[in-house]
Amino acid sequence: MTGSPARPLSRQDLAFLLYEWLDVESLTARERFAEHSRETFDAVMDLSEDLAMRLFAPHNKASDAHEPRMLPDGTVEMIPEVKKALDAFSQAGLIAGSFDGELGGMQLPVVVARAAMAWFQAANISTAGYPFLTVGNANLIAAHGSPAQVDTFVRPMLAGRWFGTMCLSEPQAGSSLADVTTKAVKDDGAEPGRYRITGTKMWISGGDHELTENIVHLVLAKVPGAPAGVKGISLFIVPKHVPDGGVRTAAERGGEAALGGRNDVTLVGLNHKMGNRGTTNTLLAFGDGTHPVDGKAGAVGYLVGEENKGLVYMFHMMNEARIGVGFGAIALGYAGYQTSLEYARIRTQGRRPGEKDPSTPPVALVEHADVRRMLLAQKAYAEGALALGLYCSMLVDQEKTADDDAVRARTTLLLDVLTPIAKSWPSQWCLHANSLAIQVHGGYGYTRDYDVEQHYRDNRLNPIHEGTHGIQGLDLLGRKMIMQGGAGLVLLAQTIEATAERARQAGGDAAGYAEELSAAVARLTEVTGTLWAGGGAEDTAQVALANSSVYLEATGHVVIAWMWLEQLLATGGKDGDFYEGKRTAARYFYRYELPRTGPQFDLLASRDRTTVDLDPAWL
Amino acid sequence: MTGSPARPLSRQDLAFLLYEWLDVESLTARERFAEHSRETFDAVMDLSEDLAMRLFAPHNKASDAHEPRMLPDGTVEMIPEVKKALDAFSQAGLIAGSFDGELGGMQLPVVVARAAMAWFQAANISTAGYPFLTVGNANLIAAHGSPAQVDTFVRPMLAGRWFGTMCLSEPQAGSSLADVTTKAVKDDGAEPGRYRITGTKMWISGGDHELTENIVHLVLAKVPGAPAGVKGISLFIVPKHVPDGGVRTAAERGGEAALGGRNDVTLVGLNHKMGNRGTTNTLLAFGDGTHPVDGKAGAVGYLVGEENKGLVYMFHMMNEARIGVGFGAIALGYAGYQTSLEYARIRTQGRRPGEKDPSTPPVALVEHADVRRMLLAQKAYAEGALALGLYCSMLVDQEKTADDDAVRARTTLLLDVLTPIAKSWPSQWCLHANSLAIQVHGGYGYTRDYDVEQHYRDNRLNPIHEGTHGIQGLDLLGRKMIMQGGAGLVLLAQTIEATAERARQAGGDAAGYAEELSAAVARLTEVTGTLWAGGGAEDTAQVALANSSVYLEATGHVVIAWMWLEQLLATGGKDGDFYEGKRTAARYFYRYELPRTGPQFDLLASRDRTTVDLDPAWL
Repeated sequence: MTGSPARPLSRQDLAFLLYEWLDVESLTARERFAEHSRETFDAVMDLSEDLAMRLFAPHNKASDAHEPRMLPDGTVEMIPEVKKALDAFSQAGLIAGSFDGELGGMQLPVVVARAAMAWFQAANISTAGYPFLTVGNANLIAAHGSPAQVDTFVRPMLAGRWFGTMCLSEPQAGSSLADVTTKAVKDDGAEPGRYRITGTKMWISGGDHELTENIVHLVLAKVPGAPAGVKGISLFIVPKHVPDGGVRTAAERGGEAALGGRNDVTLVGLNHKMGNRGTTNTLLAFGDGTHPVDGKAGAVGYLVGEENKGLVYMFHMMNEARIGVGFGAIALGYAGYQTSLEYARIRTQGRRPGEKDPSTPPVALVEHADVRRMLLAQKAYAEGALALGLYCSMLVDQEKTADDDAVRARTTLLLDVLTPIAKSWPSQWCLHANSLAIQVHGGYGYTRDYDVEQHYRDNRLNPIHEGTHGIQGLDLLGRKMIMQGGAGLVLLAQTIEATAERARQAGGDAAGYAEELSAAVARLTEVTGTLWAGGGAEDTAQVALANSSVYLEATGHVVIAWMWLEQLLATGGKDGDFYEGKRTAARYFYRYELPRTGPQFDLLASRDRTTVDLDPAWL
Repeated sequence: MTGSPARPLSRQDLAFLLYEWLDVESLTARERFAEHSRETFDAVMDLSEDLAMRLFAPHNKASDAHEPRMLPDGTVEMIPEVKKALDAFSQAGLIAGSFDGELGGMQLPVVVARAAMAWFQAANISTAGYPFLTVGNANLIAAHGSPAQVDTFVRPMLAGRWFGTMCLSEPQAGSSLADVTTKAVKDDGAEPGRYRITGTKMWISGGDHELTENIVHLVLAKVPGAPAGVKGISLFIVPKHVPDGGVRTAAERGGEAALGGRNDVTLVGLNHKMGNRGTTNTLLAFGDGTHPVDGKAGAVGYLVGEENKGLVYMFHMMNEARIGVGFGAIALGYAGYQTSLEYARIRTQGRRPGEKDPSTPPVALVEHADVRRMLLAQKAYAEGALALGLYCSMLVDQEKTADDDAVRARTTLLLDVLTPIAKSWPSQWCLHANSLAIQVHGGYGYTRDYDVEQHYRDNRLNPIHEGTHGIQGLDLLGRKMIMQGGAGLVLLAQTIEATAERARQAGGDAAGYAEELSAAVARLTEVTGTLWAGGGAEDTAQVALANSSVYLEATGHVVIAWMWLEQLLATGGKDGDFYEGKRTAARYFYRYELPRTGPQFDLLASRDRTTVDLDPAWL
């Protein structure tokens, strides 16, 4: 009923952002990316678009309608198209895209790998979830695991033979990792670094399936005697099947790891979600004794790095995962925009205001001002968020390849400040974009015959997982903005101000927006100071953080306004529909969106105590 | 997994709004309601709460998971609990609640009937949809039909033997009724007023089912030679089964109508929706020739009133239906609030800011400021919207029973202005409340084991049907605010100002809010003038209406701020958790919500042309 589907992303926009704006080609001057060129980047984009449209998009609806189910034998059944698509993805080498050549990767810049991955997320977020999680897992082990762990676990994951998960939450502890109760005890007599893990993990995406021969779980657990709270958390690799011969380097083993016995990791059940249904989401039991390897209790796990440093390692992955979640939200927002734009161009309905003659033919939906507002809003949200996602990804590349420690430190700091926004802003506003996409479709958009209702359901996950919206707000205002004596905020303000200064030089609309943006940044700085005035006293923190979600949202709008000024400058006055579109979306953002922050900053500046002083009995 | 479900509404709040605030008992001084008392009102509320909780709530999830399906024989299959619940609803006399005693009704005030109906909407919006539509249909025929039509069609509907629908949209014309193409031709040789109807109607809720022995469709169609556009639309009663002996009064017939032959109304298909799945939504063919009654072409239909006045009659019902849709959104928003509040009180997670000792036990979710913000926002949305819905319903009662034409005219005018807001504001903000309810639940809220994800999916319909959000904006700014020389806006401003004046006298917080409210109303009045400055020139209308959705949203927030000031005044300084809760929610609305209108009014005042000047090729 929908005709040929719209392309869910725009190659022209991606090319604009990557080459005309970010100058991603400049990265090829760095040693790590020296083998690359615009041609190799474009080849990856071509390949990704082709695979995504050919193998991922066609089963997006089917995997929603026929979600994975757990069979009586404890295995998971899902539609066969998922495995077919993922095998092609793996065979194309895309899981290893940004990894070192030494590990079989393409050594692509992260910014290019993210853009390529966005095609899959836009086409089918659920199927794309499996490699997405695997990349995050492999990245962490590559960064913090031993050479033997890298060879044993990372190599099969990069080849797509094994997939990976992250096991943080427990049924009683979702956001609160301090309350993790999963236990790890040293496996006496076994190889060093081997532990036995016992506990239950909840919300584990990709936690079980038959897509790959093995699944590598990264599990947070506590060893006996560890400090209370997050300082006592350690990180373990717990594979579904223990590798034959244990953990060894490729040289020791003479090749890649093969499967050994089944580990004591049991699928207890699948969660049934509103959307994102194609990605299994599981309750897993580690070491409940039903699948003993050797008669001992507990699943076999291998310590990553040192004991009690698990959360530090995990945060390394979580920052990337958070930007990745943002990309998922962006991809869905973008897909909804493209889908509703195509619909608005084809579907006719009603007449323009002032047209009194009902015998004139109806006009296309896109002729109505309110429909244009809804499309322009979607464009501003999706393209603004995509710019931020790519900008952050470029920072990851710059951080990784900086040859100056001071530059690296600044890059890390800016990335730290931007990460909660890169996660939360798309999760909020690209979800809103999906709602507008439904609205453009009218009643049709509310039916499952069209794609937009699924985008909306799929995207509703994103403000929840990898740290809820509320957690991101606490992270931004309670940690990122005040660490290093507030250096993060200063750096963010300076970086934005540099753009504003360029815009003033450029003149025209850009100069006007620069004034508004500078004023908003000044307000953000002032309000942050007001919130923390009084130092670290308990009541100060309570009042300051009471409206951290509002702070997160206001800061997010300032950052996206900055992204739109950057894009406006990057159009460089060029002619053509595409560039006019960019300029109009920038205008939309400065006229309709940035002003929303005024009342938010007012509220924050008042250090409002409404929620602090509330007695829950009043609710 | 959810334990015993929370009550989806609050009896204490309903009692506060109906008795302490609106003084609904005062209606019993009017002749129409003279038989009633607070006792009879409370008895209806008791009955409704009991039936809703006992027969509607328990199958809410089941009718979502097992949506109605069309069988090969063209009938509709659904879970049996739906019919059981509706039969009990009908037998309790609730369909006829607000109808005349002469028709077998209870002659309840509409405001009480709406409050009673809200229990069913909160418990199970899909099952409640069938009587909801039937009441609207019966109301219209009772108001505009002939005595014979009333006896033939309304009486069986009020008894619950037959249900009713509204058939406006067509596949090519959703919002644009000017483009209706369904045809009606006089049925030569048949009884007067009998026509033959041919055409296809889309999005017909309750359009087919086996719940009742007959279905009474109200169908918009055009007779040959009628004026183009909406001025040529007539209204017809098209029953699924033609009544035995045609349309006759009860006296002529000697009792209620019985079924005659099957009419030529065919179920073409069911629409499969994101939510609201239990209410069938249908594509219906009228007169496609497959079910001839008498060998002639076309379904048998009976003209209501006069030809070409169909839209006038339909608007009578549409205004009520719009307030009713608002109530549906409110009920779902309220249910989500109550559900997430209960969850937040039971579920523990994390610790307060400043608590450095991870060995202290986790606190209940409701102890976290950001969770309180999400709960307080839901309370402010749901209770604020409920106040508006009941206020509008009370206006309906006052309009119906006014003994002074001038009072009646003013009441009608105020109701006309408020109707687009009573429909759109809850549809937007109680949906947002449902999103917050999910967020309070964290990952659990995204699963189908909990109720809140269904509330969110169910509620997403409400900004679409009975006039989209955009249509409501055009109605408010393009019609309601300028008709009678702008008298509607003047009346609204005066009415709000009277509340503000009382608040100034009351002093304290109320006086402060009164200043903010008066300023917002002044801004609304000023901006409305600015938008229409330039008179009715085509470009004026285009620019004025370009941001009518923004205007609708800003006006809605002003109106709900008024409703919160009214509620605050109604607490009268009384002590107790309930009243503190009302005062805190009022504070929340004035601190967090009303200020949102500032940038919206600024945008409107600028007569922004961004969407008007946009070339669709730029998108």
